[in-house]
Amino acid sequence: MRILVSEIPNNIAKTVTVAGWIHKIRKLGGISFVVIRDRSGLAQVVVEEEAHEMLAELSTESVVSLTGKVKREERAPLGAEILAEKVEIISPVTEDIPVEINKKELRANLDTLLDNRPLTLRNPEQRAIFKVQAEIIRAFRDFLTGEGFTEIHSSKIVESGLETGGAEMFEVKWFKDKAFLSQSPQMYKQIMVGVYERVFETAFAYRAEKHSTGRHLNEYLSLDLEMGFIDSHEDVMKLEERMLGYIVNHLSETCAKEFELLDAKLPKAPKEFPRLKLVEAQEILEHEYKEKCVGAPDLDPKQEKLICEYAEKKWGSEFIFITHYPSKKRPFYTYDDPAEPKSTRSFDLMFRGIEITTGGQRLHLYEDYLKKMKDRNMSPNNFSDYLSIFKYGMPPHGGLAIGAERLTAKLLNLENVREASLFPRDINRLRP
Amino acid sequence: MRILVSEIPNNIAKTVTVAGWIHKIRKLGGISFVVIRDRSGLAQVVVEEEAHEMLAELSTESVVSLTGKVKREERAPLGAEILAEKVEIISPVTEDIPVEINKKELRANLDTLLDNRPLTLRNPEQRAIFKVQAEIIRAFRDFLTGEGFTEIHSSKIVESGLETGGAEMFEVKWFKDKAFLSQSPQMYKQIMVGVYERVFETAFAYRAEKHSTGRHLNEYLSLDLEMGFIDSHEDVMKLEERMLGYIVNHLSETCAKEFELLDAKLPKAPKEFPRLKLVEAQEILEHEYKEKCVGAPDLDPKQEKLICEYAEKKWGSEFIFITHYPSKKRPFYTYDDPAEPKSTRSFDLMFRGIEITTGGQRLHLYEDYLKKMKDRNMSPNNFSDYLSIFKYGMPPHGGLAIGAERLTAKLLNLENVREASLFPRDINRLRP
Repeated sequence: MRILVSEIPNNIAKTVTVAGWIHKIRKLGGISFVVIRDRSGLAQVVVEEEAHEMLAELSTESVVSLTGKVKREERAPLGAEILAEKVEIISPVTEDIPVEINKKELRANLDTLLDNRPLTLRNPEQRAIFKVQAEIIRAFRDFLTGEGFTEIHSSKIVESGLETGGAEMFEVKWFKDKAFLSQSPQMYKQIMVGVYERVFETAFAYRAEKHSTGRHLNEYLSLDLEMGFIDSHEDVMKLEERMLGYIVNHLSETCAKEFELLDAKLPKAPKEFPRLKLVEAQEILEHEYKEKCVGAPDLDPKQEKLICEYAEKKWGSEFIFITHYPSKKRPFYTYDDPAEPKSTRSFDLMFRGIEITTGGQRLHLYEDYLKKMKDRNMSPNNFSDYLSIFKYGMPPHGGLAIGAERLTAKLLNLENVREASLFPRDINRLRP
Repeated sequence: MRILVSEIPNNIAKTVTVAGWIHKIRKLGGISFVVIRDRSGLAQVVVEEEAHEMLAELSTESVVSLTGKVKREERAPLGAEILAEKVEIISPVTEDIPVEINKKELRANLDTLLDNRPLTLRNPEQRAIFKVQAEIIRAFRDFLTGEGFTEIHSSKIVESGLETGGAEMFEVKWFKDKAFLSQSPQMYKQIMVGVYERVFETAFAYRAEKHSTGRHLNEYLSLDLEMGFIDSHEDVMKLEERMLGYIVNHLSETCAKEFELLDAKLPKAPKEFPRLKLVEAQEILEHEYKEKCVGAPDLDPKQEKLICEYAEKKWGSEFIFITHYPSKKRPFYTYDDPAEPKSTRSFDLMFRGIEITTGGQRLHLYEDYLKKMKDRNMSPNNFSDYLSIFKYGMPPHGGLAIGAERLTAKLLNLENVREASLFPRDINRLRP
């Protein structure tokens, strides 16, 4: 019976069998130290001189089964090690490995990392990144399920999009028709507010942006939610505060080892995140940082960084909401703020220098949609499925979307968002 | 403060406010009975004559807020009802509704159901279907997380496929390149066995099958898992038995109301499902049902039905595994059974007359892949990313895929698998 290496310390003086990959081999005089890697972590196995021929055929990444007695050893990673009595090769390595999987420096070169993705993902740091991502997404779903949300799975193949009408969408050949890859589940999650009031989805979204930056992915994992019967965007922001608190707490319970390995710190997140209207943020940026920006419709990347710096210094928060973006810069379904014409009940959440969430209240009355579309010279005929729901009773509602890779990257201090995508796709990368 | 209608019975003699959609209005003499629908269910509100003008503008599906005193009433669905004192319109209905959302017969016509999807999903039976689906998927993830599996999110945009090489795949215009929608995460989940040993994914897969049947979807939700360090396909089948037991139990705890509403029964699932080799199943079909089929490479739909009937009668199980499909009918990565040349360590799981899972052990040695590909005149050069992992140490592994819509449809006795897809896509349907 195989045990996981994490169970080794509970088996002192017993004979056990572990199985996994040879992570490292180090010869020291007559003794070899083999580090074995399985899904639970790394462990040290000692192979003494008389058993050395067992190692002759082995190179790193060979899959082996090792049997031996467990003995306490303070200098070993788990406080215990196995004294090998038997080594069995399960699966040999048949060619020289193109990358050194056991080296921390693997992260230094992004192209090497991604070109050899099937192998580089075996590296413990890489493995830690996607373990953290899996736990972020689990916490996202668990929190929302506890809040009465229902999970949905909306089609990714659409006739047209709400945001751009096709300009930035990938085309799909769908039988005889032309279709597109969905750039957002926005329409579907609003439809589903009419069904379940509160819904969420965790799925890929697609943006055909041609520029290749460290902030963007063409295929990204969008953590979406939408909720009905709200008073304003403030309700959505309050939910997100509690949700991020829940996620951070979940990570502290499940991923302490991974954060340590990646030399990353959980964020400082007060119960209430600071909030600034866009124009207030811009005034601070002008006053404190000499950034000319009052009147601009958005913050640029440098300004996003500076306002985060300010929030941390001033309020001890690594999160800050920027609200009330101008109506003309937000999609047509955004709810204009009755108290401030030309601005909207919308928000972005900034974290460690970058926007990780866009959200807000949406229009819910049919005539408001018609009016907004007329103002923008849009034709309601192109949106008939979408508009139909507003004819038949929709409550005030709003929602948000979080880019999972951005959140993961920022939590773990990764420089490029691609490092937080298992198999990233961009203009130059369509494999593996 | 709004309460959910499910909380009404806990508020006898108190004045409460509920909010939701008007599901039904029934006038009886001077009194009107209004059924209100929110995310928690349906409740009865009584509006007496003197308050009738409050109802004048209301039609079904209007979104309202209702305030009044709760009183015990045995004949009301919750054992209590609200005596309305105040009715507030939150969102009116502005046009005649094209379908009767409150009618059970809505399910009778599939085209009507799907053409008006944004509205018909509000029907309680429709809502129940996707609540059950959400809970199936939650249980799938929770069970596997508890078993040490890690969730992955693999790209849906691929250069080529493992199963058909493009014949049945949808083409995507990806910048200057031609790409395809992934027909299965098979390659990625095997890669990830090298990383985490045990992985799962819940995401859409795409098959460009041109025929439109009640069994197939062009975009379907695939519940995938893959696990390393197995002895044979039997380990995967054992895991699936326990997993389905967990899911059924979870549904009995969370979806009893939904099963009742849909007049569906949880399946009879013994701890061990019966298993038959394909040829054994065929012999039974010939002997018991006069179906000439011994020697055929697969069961046809009629035979799938009959063998399920047999399993229920003979072993009291609505699930039955069929194993050992012939090598030539299974993908090249399938592990041939050393004990029975030409047959494979593969299985399908049949449930209520249809195959809901395909699974098996995969090859894990590089030279076995080369040999199998040579036998099939396939070029290893077309699969270099995939094959690379087998050069560098892969344990024996296997996995399975469950079609979430099929499982949902069969659990709930839905005739067409489209009824279990929120926004189904097929050759004739690209919206909403």
